Amino acid sequence: MPNELLAKEKTHLVAFMPSGKRGRFPDGTPVLEAARVLGVDIDSVCGGRGICGRCQVDLTVGKFSKHGVVSRADSLSPFAEAEEKFKQRRGMKEGRRLSCHALLRGDVVIDVPAVSQVHKQVIVKQADDRKIEMDPAIRLHFVQVLEPDMYNPTGDFERLCLALKQQWGLDFMECDLRTLQALQKVLRDGKWNVTVAVHRSSRITKIWPGFHNVAYGLAVDVGSTTIAMHLCNLSTGDVVASAGMMNPQIRYGEDLMSRVSYVMMNPGGEQLLTEAVRRGINDLIAEVSEAAEIDPTDILNAVFVGNPIMHHLLLGIDPTELGGAPFALTTNSGMTVWMSEIGVGSNPDGRAYFLPCIAGHVGADTAAVILAEAPHLQDQMMLIIDVGTNAEIVLGNNVRLLAASSPTGPAFEGAQISCGQRAAAGAIERVRINPETLEPRFKVIGSDLWSDEDGFEEETKKSGITGICGSGIIEVIAEMYLSGILTTDGVIDGSFAAKSPRVVADGRTFSYVIRGGESEIKIYQTDVRAIQLAKAALYAGAKLLMDKLGVETVDRIVLTGAFGSHIDTKYAMVLGMIPDCNLEDVEGVGNAAGIGARIALLNKSARDEIEAVVRSVEKIETAVEPKFQEYFVEAMAIPHKTSRYPELAKVVKLPEPRVSSNNPDGDNGRRRRRRRG
Amino acid sequence: MPNELLAKEKTHLVAFMPSGKRGRFPDGTPVLEAARVLGVDIDSVCGGRGICGRCQVDLTVGKFSKHGVVSRADSLSPFAEAEEKFKQRRGMKEGRRLSCHALLRGDVVIDVPAVSQVHKQVIVKQADDRKIEMDPAIRLHFVQVLEPDMYNPTGDFERLCLALKQQWGLDFMECDLRTLQALQKVLRDGKWNVTVAVHRSSRITKIWPGFHNVAYGLAVDVGSTTIAMHLCNLSTGDVVASAGMMNPQIRYGEDLMSRVSYVMMNPGGEQLLTEAVRRGINDLIAEVSEAAEIDPTDILNAVFVGNPIMHHLLLGIDPTELGGAPFALTTNSGMTVWMSEIGVGSNPDGRAYFLPCIAGHVGADTAAVILAEAPHLQDQMMLIIDVGTNAEIVLGNNVRLLAASSPTGPAFEGAQISCGQRAAAGAIERVRINPETLEPRFKVIGSDLWSDEDGFEEETKKSGITGICGSGIIEVIAEMYLSGILTTDGVIDGSFAAKSPRVVADGRTFSYVIRGGESEIKIYQTDVRAIQLAKAALYAGAKLLMDKLGVETVDRIVLTGAFGSHIDTKYAMVLGMIPDCNLEDVEGVGNAAGIGARIALLNKSARDEIEAVVRSVEKIETAVEPKFQEYFVEAMAIPHKTSRYPELAKVVKLPEPRVSSNNPDGDNGRRRRRRRG
Repeated sequence: MPNELLAKEKTHLVAFMPSGKRGRFPDGTPVLEAARVLGVDIDSVCGGRGICGRCQVDLTVGKFSKHGVVSRADSLSPFAEAEEKFKQRRGMKEGRRLSCHALLRGDVVIDVPAVSQVHKQVIVKQADDRKIEMDPAIRLHFVQVLEPDMYNPTGDFERLCLALKQQWGLDFMECDLRTLQALQKVLRDGKWNVTVAVHRSSRITKIWPGFHNVAYGLAVDVGSTTIAMHLCNLSTGDVVASAGMMNPQIRYGEDLMSRVSYVMMNPGGEQLLTEAVRRGINDLIAEVSEAAEIDPTDILNAVFVGNPIMHHLLLGIDPTELGGAPFALTTNSGMTVWMSEIGVGSNPDGRAYFLPCIAGHVGADTAAVILAEAPHLQDQMMLIIDVGTNAEIVLGNNVRLLAASSPTGPAFEGAQISCGQRAAAGAIERVRINPETLEPRFKVIGSDLWSDEDGFEEETKKSGITGICGSGIIEVIAEMYLSGILTTDGVIDGSFAAKSPRVVADGRTFSYVIRGGESEIKIYQTDVRAIQLAKAALYAGAKLLMDKLGVETVDRIVLTGAFGSHIDTKYAMVLGMIPDCNLEDVEGVGNAAGIGARIALLNKSARDEIEAVVRSVEKIETAVEPKFQEYFVEAMAIPHKTSRYPELAKVVKLPEPRVSSNNPDGDNGRRRRRRRG
Repeated sequence: MPNELLAKEKTHLVAFMPSGKRGRFPDGTPVLEAARVLGVDIDSVCGGRGICGRCQVDLTVGKFSKHGVVSRADSLSPFAEAEEKFKQRRGMKEGRRLSCHALLRGDVVIDVPAVSQVHKQVIVKQADDRKIEMDPAIRLHFVQVLEPDMYNPTGDFERLCLALKQQWGLDFMECDLRTLQALQKVLRDGKWNVTVAVHRSSRITKIWPGFHNVAYGLAVDVGSTTIAMHLCNLSTGDVVASAGMMNPQIRYGEDLMSRVSYVMMNPGGEQLLTEAVRRGINDLIAEVSEAAEIDPTDILNAVFVGNPIMHHLLLGIDPTELGGAPFALTTNSGMTVWMSEIGVGSNPDGRAYFLPCIAGHVGADTAAVILAEAPHLQDQMMLIIDVGTNAEIVLGNNVRLLAASSPTGPAFEGAQISCGQRAAAGAIERVRINPETLEPRFKVIGSDLWSDEDGFEEETKKSGITGICGSGIIEVIAEMYLSGILTTDGVIDGSFAAKSPRVVADGRTFSYVIRGGESEIKIYQTDVRAIQLAKAALYAGAKLLMDKLGVETVDRIVLTGAFGSHIDTKYAMVLGMIPDCNLEDVEGVGNAAGIGARIALLNKSARDEIEAVVRSVEKIETAVEPKFQEYFVEAMAIPHKTSRYPELAKVVKLPEPRVSSNNPDGDNGRRRRRRRG
């Protein structure tokens, strides 16, 4: 007895790695409890009951002079029965302990692996160093609820709240009515042990009997052409399934403005468009749920991004006002609605978050791009261009941020180009012209071979060679300029017709034949003009913002959007689409808007952050800026008039392209490191 | 010019009646503005634009030495054009001014009529002095919204919020999605002038183009037998229409427990019951909307009260747990849901508030009764009994409040009584027995005549005389006791059979014949027993609470509920249903629960108040209190054993009954005055 009393009074020093936090605790204190007291971040869903396995730690044996600790194998209590059970059931790495059941028996150094941290950092952008801290809007909490009795006539919900307060420190809970309707059965099915999903620490949105380990969320980029969806595990941050589809609204109009026209011409047409996009999203939800083999009612949160018209249509708002000046948004704030309010998902109580829109032409997708690329956290002057039917342009740094939209038209997407088509199998995406022979070689989506390589015809037989997509058009026009066929004014030089059968007359103008024969693919003079107009608009928009900010050059350029990420940045610069910049500082980033959506899904404070940033963004309307027209005219030339490249391009071999976001990234020294939290 | 300058610098003294607030303001200040500055309560929906007419005041001419003001007819600017227009359009009392357009021209005394006050007091309980301050959850605000332009790319919603902030001081607004979906059209239809309905100063729930003057609310008492609804104007507090119906759930079971049994026996049965009550409520909404000739989508708020089972079923919650010990509620908190969530009303964004339940047997209706009778605001010890199938009993004052339910069974409602029936046309509701002849005379619902008056047979021909309802049973049994037919033990004395043909043998017991002939109406010995059991339960419950509080007597007793308000309090006391109390301090109050619902509808802080009160109420479960059984047995005697009335009743002429809540109320000196705010 005296021994036991003595033991109880003993205390041990415990130090946690990697935080370095340390403190002294009585013998027998669970490691998890010591961590809680010291504010060391260790996850737990079951609240220390040895069920969830989230709180695993490693005991580190050795002498740690720095911490004044000699840590020994017996500094923790022996492996407990609950740990043994968990290991048998779910498996556990050798040496690992459940910190809720490992008790202090001596001085000890505890290593908390990243996977056991609540606020662990997860990588959301492949091939980059983007890490964000896990802090999702939905958290799961396992609780033991008091049973009712005749002497305590409180409601089941109130006893659940009491449990959440006592066991998790959560106070002032509200509950969705549907969850309330299910509450009594779930509590009794779970024998008063249940897991609840809590939205933003304030509202219960789902309840499961017993222990439930996982909830899911969706990051959805609703583009006018494609819808892309990632299904994420809200505990680990992992993408467990992805899917994409053509936006089903396409049947009502290829581009945004034709869809708005459809609404204007057909009363109630906005409802058809709304239903179409919601149906599409529901199909994708079914697809990702099936692929990941999950219960779709466990999808409790979704983040949607899209341009203003997609944003409004998904919310069921008539986009007519966005079809003409002054392009008034219904709302430009971030907002949270029930999934049932927008008719998507299998769980009506899931919550859908919409990122804020910036202006009538600059949507929640651009807000997501800002969240992903984080210019507002950086010293360097950054230009971000999301290239689609319009180009959304963001310029700035941690001091000021400007945004605008530039009316490029759909030429970059292959529309309004004679042989243009969307980027799909069969489309020419890369073109090189031999400056001596003027003969082209090219690559087609769906094949890795160039057209002059063996097996090319065989490989492209199935898809055919059906047209040329945006990146192909950029390249062929830039190559035509580099080989001299195209003048700096954008005229196809007829004198080359004498030198090569590739240059042919079409009435009073000339064209360049990429591929002859039955399904001929040619670049006409009108095509060059269309690209000139588009690239001049893009350049003029960027220049206007640089003007507003008073800068001559930028430190870094990011091209994003389905097309933006496909462009060979070298050719973009040759054409004079973008301001001058060191080529190694120009980057194509695959769907940055989708990455931003994932960040907002996994980290709820990122939502507050982007809402604050968007409020402070200076919105520039290119249409009312007199300078825009001036820059536009200047930028019609190939390259633009102030480019360093007219000389360079013709004399220097340009560096190899840096296109893909999957490009292994060695030289990121000058990029910012960004960590949230 | 100098004169004008001089005039601008002049100030005038203005005094507002009845508040007495006074201050000095520059010449030309609108009276409404002066009122605002001084904190004088004057209503306005249009924000001073001369449209709504809510801000009317009277100029009082004369010398007011007390205020140091000589008020003259020309102390205000002449009648303005806007006032003239309003008068022509809507009419205005002679001498009245719109304070937004009447400008100060001299010292003046302004009288603010009650109708012009925002927080005016309205009377919610007829024939009583119950006044509450208007402070509804829904307020209307007329605003002028900035138009969008290319230089200001904020959303329409954000500009609406700005207007609400600048023009009404409302900040951090949220908006229902459906309202957001309609926003752009409404703003343009109203030419940027709109009226918004704001719920609890934080959420926009409806928006009308231009000026809109009125919103409505519902106070609904969902009883197991009847549903009663009041449609109220949320500005004036007036009841503009009322309607009631049998609860359509009756087809699934006459009383509560049989409905719960139905649910237990029929899987999914709770949905049928939920649909039935919701359909009934929707029928009533259609009825009151039509009667008041209003647009039902202008009904933006509703307050529901009901016993726990009605409360749960209306919310779509399975009431099975309430059918057996420990009678666990799903929730006992007050809650607000969208009307669409419970499928009632024409405006899905209307909000429905449910008062809190107190315990498994003591529901939101009892909470509403507490709100109406306000024992928690009084010094005197008050006993409130809501008599239905169970009796809910509340005892206490501003120090402590106790509540319990007593299992009276349905005898008081005429059920389980041989000739019993619900209170409806044709039911005997009053009975007197001549102590000499033992002959009865009685009254029947639907006729004002006693059975021995001329024309009685004629008047009751249509309904017939079909049975006896609760109040009739109470009276006949009390009268049988007073005339000696019934012993104090509740035995019909067979020796009377020799004295009167009204007392007849039925096997080994006797009965009393109220009406002979074909459709005989008799009181059997078993009927007396049933009433004895019910009244003993009621008395024992009250006594138990008095015991818990340590009081021997109470200062005041209120009987409520459909039956409670019908009881002749004198007979209730003769029977020993209730503890002794001065008879003038025993009152029958018509639907107190409905009054409580109206209070919560018209005054949102009353919701917070009752939630706090309910949390502090001490809940007593009679079933687990050993004393209850003891008191129950004691109380079987007629009257109960400790009553002063055995002697009194037989020697003293009892005072005339005080039954109806419409009883003109002269002697309310000892009652509390209660004013909110």
